[in-house]
Amino acid sequence: MRLEGLYAPVPTPFNDRGDIDLDALSFNFDRWLTFPMDGIVVSGSNGECPLLTFPERAGLFRASARLAQGKMRIIAGIHCASTRETVELGREAAASGVDAVLVLPPHYYKGQNTPGSLAAYFETVADSVPVPVVLYNMPSNTGFNLDPGIVLKLSSHPNIIGIKDSSGDIVQIATICRDAPEDFGVFAGSGSFFLPSLAVGCTGGTMGVANLFADACRDILASFRKGDLDRARRLQLEIIDINQAVTKRFGVPGLKAALDHTGLYGGPVRPPLLPVSQAVRTEIAGIYDRFNSIYGGELS
Amino acid sequence: MRLEGLYAPVPTPFNDRGDIDLDALSFNFDRWLTFPMDGIVVSGSNGECPLLTFPERAGLFRASARLAQGKMRIIAGIHCASTRETVELGREAAASGVDAVLVLPPHYYKGQNTPGSLAAYFETVADSVPVPVVLYNMPSNTGFNLDPGIVLKLSSHPNIIGIKDSSGDIVQIATICRDAPEDFGVFAGSGSFFLPSLAVGCTGGTMGVANLFADACRDILASFRKGDLDRARRLQLEIIDINQAVTKRFGVPGLKAALDHTGLYGGPVRPPLLPVSQAVRTEIAGIYDRFNSIYGGELS
Amino acid sequence: MRLEGLYAPVPTPFNDRGDIDLDALSFNFDRWLTFPMDGIVVSGSNGECPLLTFPERAGLFRASARLAQGKMRIIAGIHCASTRETVELGREAAASGVDAVLVLPPHYYKGQNTPGSLAAYFETVADSVPVPVVLYNMPSNTGFNLDPGIVLKLSSHPNIIGIKDSSGDIVQIATICRDAPEDFGVFAGSGSFFLPSLAVGCTGGTMGVANLFADACRDILASFRKGDLDRARRLQLEIIDINQAVTKRFGVPGLKAALDHTGLYGGPVRPPLLPVSQAVRTEIAGIYDRFNSIYGGELS
Amino acid sequence: MRLEGLYAPVPTPFNDRGDIDLDALSFNFDRWLTFPMDGIVVSGSNGECPLLTFPERAGLFRASARLAQGKMRIIAGIHCASTRETVELGREAAASGVDAVLVLPPHYYKGQNTPGSLAAYFETVADSVPVPVVLYNMPSNTGFNLDPGIVLKLSSHPNIIGIKDSSGDIVQIATICRDAPEDFGVFAGSGSFFLPSLAVGCTGGTMGVANLFADACRDILASFRKGDLDRARRLQLEIIDINQAVTKRFGVPGLKAALDHTGLYGGPVRPPLLPVSQAVRTEIAGIYDRFNSIYGGELS
Repeated sequence: MRLEGLYAPVPTPFNDRGDIDLDALSFNFDRWLTFPMDGIVVSGSNGECPLLTFPERAGLFRASARLAQGKMRIIAGIHCASTRETVELGREAAASGVDAVLVLPPHYYKGQNTPGSLAAYFETVADSVPVPVVLYNMPSNTGFNLDPGIVLKLSSHPNIIGIKDSSGDIVQIATICRDAPEDFGVFAGSGSFFLPSLAVGCTGGTMGVANLFADACRDILASFRKGDLDRARRLQLEIIDINQAVTKRFGVPGLKAALDHTGLYGGPVRPPLLPVSQAVRTEIAGIYDRFNSIYGGELS
Repeated sequence: MRLEGLYAPVPTPFNDRGDIDLDALSFNFDRWLTFPMDGIVVSGSNGECPLLTFPERAGLFRASARLAQGKMRIIAGIHCASTRETVELGREAAASGVDAVLVLPPHYYKGQNTPGSLAAYFETVADSVPVPVVLYNMPSNTGFNLDPGIVLKLSSHPNIIGIKDSSGDIVQIATICRDAPEDFGVFAGSGSFFLPSLAVGCTGGTMGVANLFADACRDILASFRKGDLDRARRLQLEIIDINQAVTKRFGVPGLKAALDHTGLYGGPVRPPLLPVSQAVRTEIAGIYDRFNSIYGGELS
Repeated sequence: MRLEGLYAPVPTPFNDRGDIDLDALSFNFDRWLTFPMDGIVVSGSNGECPLLTFPERAGLFRASARLAQGKMRIIAGIHCASTRETVELGREAAASGVDAVLVLPPHYYKGQNTPGSLAAYFETVADSVPVPVVLYNMPSNTGFNLDPGIVLKLSSHPNIIGIKDSSGDIVQIATICRDAPEDFGVFAGSGSFFLPSLAVGCTGGTMGVANLFADACRDILASFRKGDLDRARRLQLEIIDINQAVTKRFGVPGLKAALDHTGLYGGPVRPPLLPVSQAVRTEIAGIYDRFNSIYGGELS
Repeated sequence: MRLEGLYAPVPTPFNDRGDIDLDALSFNFDRWLTFPMDGIVVSGSNGECPLLTFPERAGLFRASARLAQGKMRIIAGIHCASTRETVELGREAAASGVDAVLVLPPHYYKGQNTPGSLAAYFETVADSVPVPVVLYNMPSNTGFNLDPGIVLKLSSHPNIIGIKDSSGDIVQIATICRDAPEDFGVFAGSGSFFLPSLAVGCTGGTMGVANLFADACRDILASFRKGDLDRARRLQLEIIDINQAVTKRFGVPGLKAALDHTGLYGGPVRPPLLPVSQAVRTEIAGIYDRFNSIYGGELS
C-alpha cells in the first residue's frame, strides 16, 4: 500500500446516551463511499480517539472495515499511551481488516522523549503490527513535534509507509518529502495547507474538510496535478475558512455541527468536549454555505 | 479531609514481564509507612498513570488503600481522557477506600478548553465521585496551564478540597493561596520550589524527592513552621538537584533508578518510557549520595 | 558595592512634546529620596530604555547621579544592541557618577546566542566599563532566558556583582543563589515574587511597585529578615495586584498612570507605547487605593 | 511601486575596525547589479540593523541608493524602537532616494501591543514617511507575530504596499494573500518556503539565499510562473539547506562566511555577533558547493 491521494479523518458518531452509534456510522459510510476519496481515517483526532475505550476502538475498526466493502482504504488510529496497548490495538486493527494504522509519538512524558526512545516506540509498533504504519505528527494536540530527523530514520523501516504531518511547518514537510525514500508517503494533515504541501512534494492529504467537501479537496489535487495552479490556488484559499472552522477554531464539535448541517450524522460529542453554542452552529453553517456557494458558483 | 502536609507521588512497580508487581508495592509500603509523610499519591504522573489500564489503576487503588492500613492518606490519580471514564474510575477509587482523588484538566483537545468546559468537567467529576477531589495542574506534561481564575471558581465547590500545582509559577500559586477559601489546600507540586511555596501560603506539597528523602522534606516544612528560615533555605537549596534528577531531568526512569539505589523497589519502567542508561544511573546515585551526605553531615 | 536591599526601576518623565523632562525628574527625586530605598534603576525597562536615544540616556545618567546627591545608589541601564554602543554608554554612565550598570543579554539575534557568545558579550562589557555590572534577565521582553549556567560562569568575574532576574522562575533563582559566590547579589526582578525570592536567598529586589509603595516593599524585606513570616506573607500577597497592574498587565503606561494618581510625575509615555484608557486609569487608581487602604488599615 | 519579484536582504559590510566599509559595499553592488533580482533590502535583519547607529543607517541608505543607479529597487529597513526615530529615519531614507521602507512591529514591550497600538504605530509611520511602507513580520527575532487581522486592516492604507512575512506560517500567508487588496504585495520572507508561498499567491520574496544564488531563486519564480512545477519543486527542495545555513542555523555570521566563500565581500560581523568557527565555515562552504554543483549539474 502506498500512502497517497485524499483521505477524510472521520468523526465517531455517538447516540444520545453517549455510546457509539453504528447505525449512524453506516449511514455516514453510505455517503462517504460516494465521495471522491481514497480512504478514511477512523479513531484519529477527529474521531475523538482519546475519549474512546480500547474495546470501542476495536469495534469501530471492525465496523469500518466491513462498511468500506473494500471500496475505500481504512486507516485506523491505534495510538495508546503505552507501547503494549498500542501494539495490542494495532493487532486488533489488523485482524479487523483495516489497511493501515496511524500512530502518534508518545507525548505525556514528552520531557523524556529522545531520538532513541521515539525510534524504539515506532519500531516496536511497526515490527509487531502486521499492517503498514503511518506516523502522525500533531503538535497542537500533543505539545510535541516529531522532528524530521527521526521521521527520516524511520522512513526506511519496511513497515512504515508514510507520515501525516499536521504541524503546518512547511519547511519541515518539504524536508521530509525531499529526503525520505521514494515510496514513503507524506500527507498534509490539514486542508488549510494542502496545496502548499503538494507543491513541495506531498503525495496527498487527510483533512477535516474532506468530510464536507471531498469533491473540492479532490479538485485541488487534480488541478495541481494537471498544472492548473490558478484554480488550485483559488480553491485552496477559499477552503481555508471552512477547514479552520471544523478543526482549529471549533474542533470536533465544530465538525459535527457542520455534518449535521449537511445532512450527514454529526450528533453529540463526548465530554469533556462540549457541543458548540447555537451562535457558533449558525456561524459554521454560514461559513459552510459560503464555500458551497462559491464552489457551486464562480469556482464551479 | 484537609489537603495539607507532605505527600510522595509514588511510582508503580512492575515486574520483569512489565506487569504490576503488588509484592513490590507491599515491600515499598512497609518503608513508606515509616516515612514522616502524611500520605502518598498513587497513579499520578510519577505512577505512570497514562501507561496503566483502567483495571490496573483500580487494582492499584484497592491494594494501596489496604496497604496503607489507615496510617497514611491515599490520593488516587483518576484522570482519564473522557469524563465518563474519569467518573467511573473515581467511583472505583472511592469504593476502594482511598481518601481523595487527583484530576488533571482535559488536555488532548486543549484548543477547545474554555473556562466553561473546564468547570463543567471538574464539577461533573466532583459531583459524581464520593470522595474529595484535588485539582492537578501539570503543564510540562499536559501542555496546558490551569488558570487561577478557574481554580478559584472551583475552589468553592464543596467536594473540591485543593490543588497540586506543579507549574512552578510562584505568582500563580501565591494568587491561589490568597484568594481561595481558608480550607482549600494548595500544594507545591515539586520539591524544587517547596519552601517558596510555603512562604506564599501553601499548606504542604507532594514531591518526587519525598520518595527518597521524606525526612528532609518534612524538615523543610517543620523548619519553616517554627521560623528557622535559614535552615529551611539551606535544605531547600541542597535538595533541588536530587529532586530535579528524579523529575524534570530523568523523569520516572530516574526516580526508579534512585529507588533501586536506596534499597526500595524501583524496577523497570513501562515502554514507551525507557530505563536510564548506566551512566545516568551512576550520576543519579552520585547526586543522591551527595545530598545524603550533606543531610547527614553539615545539615544534620 | 554589594547588590542588596530595595531598588525602584523608575520611569523616564517626558513633557508634552515627548522630550525628557528634567524638572519632572527632579520633582520625583525629591520624593524618592524620602523613600526607604537603597537606590533606583534608571533607563531600565520601566525607564523606556529602548525608546531613548543614546544622548538622552547619557543625559539621564548625569542628571540622576547629580539628583541622588550620594544619598541613594543609581544603577544605569546601559544595554544597547551592539557591544560597542553598550560599552560606550557604560563609560558615559561611569563618568557621570552612577554606581553600577545593568545589562541585558543580546536578544534580537537570539538564535545565534551561545554560552560562548553571551560570555564574550558580558565579559567585554565588564572589562571595559569602570563601574560594577549587574546582569539583567527579562525574558518577557527579550524572548530569551539567561541560563543559570551562564550566570554562574559570569558570577566569578570581578566586575560583575549580581543579577536582576525578572523571569519569575523561582527554581532558577534558587539555583543562582545557591551556586554563585557569597558576594554576588541576586535580585528579584518583580514585586510579585519578592518574598519567595528572599526565601531562597535573594539579597534584595528591584520592583515597579517600589515607585509607589517603597515602604511596604521595605516592610516585606524587614519582616522577612526579623522572622515575621506571617506579616511578610500577608504583605506579599496583597501587593501582587498593584505590582501586576503597573508591570505585566498595563506596563509603563500603567505605572505612569499610577504615579499621576499619587502626586508624583507620571506624564505621557513615548510612542509606540500608548497611554492607558480612562477606564484602565480608574481601575489602576482603584487597585492602588485598595492596597493603600489595606496597608494603612489591617496591615499597618 | 508594487512589491513583487525577487529581493536579497543584503548584509552590511564592515572593515577590520568594525566600521561600515563603503568600498566593500560598492564591490558587492557591482556583483548584485548583475544578479537577476528586482531589488535589495538594506538595513534589514541580515543587515545587522539593530547593531547600526542611526547615522550609519542613514549613510547606508544614501550609499545604496547611489550605487543602485536606478537599476534595482532599494528597500530600507528603518525600524527603530521609538516611533519618532522610525519616522525620522524613514524621512532620511526617503530623502536618500530609496524606493520603499521596511518596518517591524514594536516588540520590546510586546505585552503592551494591541491591535490599536500596532495600527497607530504603522499608520503614523506610513503617514509620515514619503515613500511606500512594507510591513515586516519576523517572529523568530522579535518574539512577536503580526496577526493577519492587523495586516489586513493596514493593507488598505494607501502608503502601505505589502508585507514581508518570515513567520513560515503558510496558512497565515495564504490568508493575507486572499484577503488583502489586489495591489498589496505579499513576500515570502525566506528562501526555505518560497515555492509554497508562491503557490498560495505571494507576489515574490526576499531571501538570504538570493545573496548567493539569485539565479536559482529567480528560476523557482520563473518555473512556477510558466507552470513547470516539477522544476520549481526540485529547486525549492534543494535550496533549503543552503538557505537554512545562512539564516536560521548560522545567521548573519553564516551568510558572511558564505559570501567570503563565493568571492563577494562578507567580512566580519559586529559584536555581540561572533564569526562562525572554522569548522562551520567549512560546513557552509560544503553546503554551498553541493547546491552549486546540483544547480550546475542535474538541475542546469
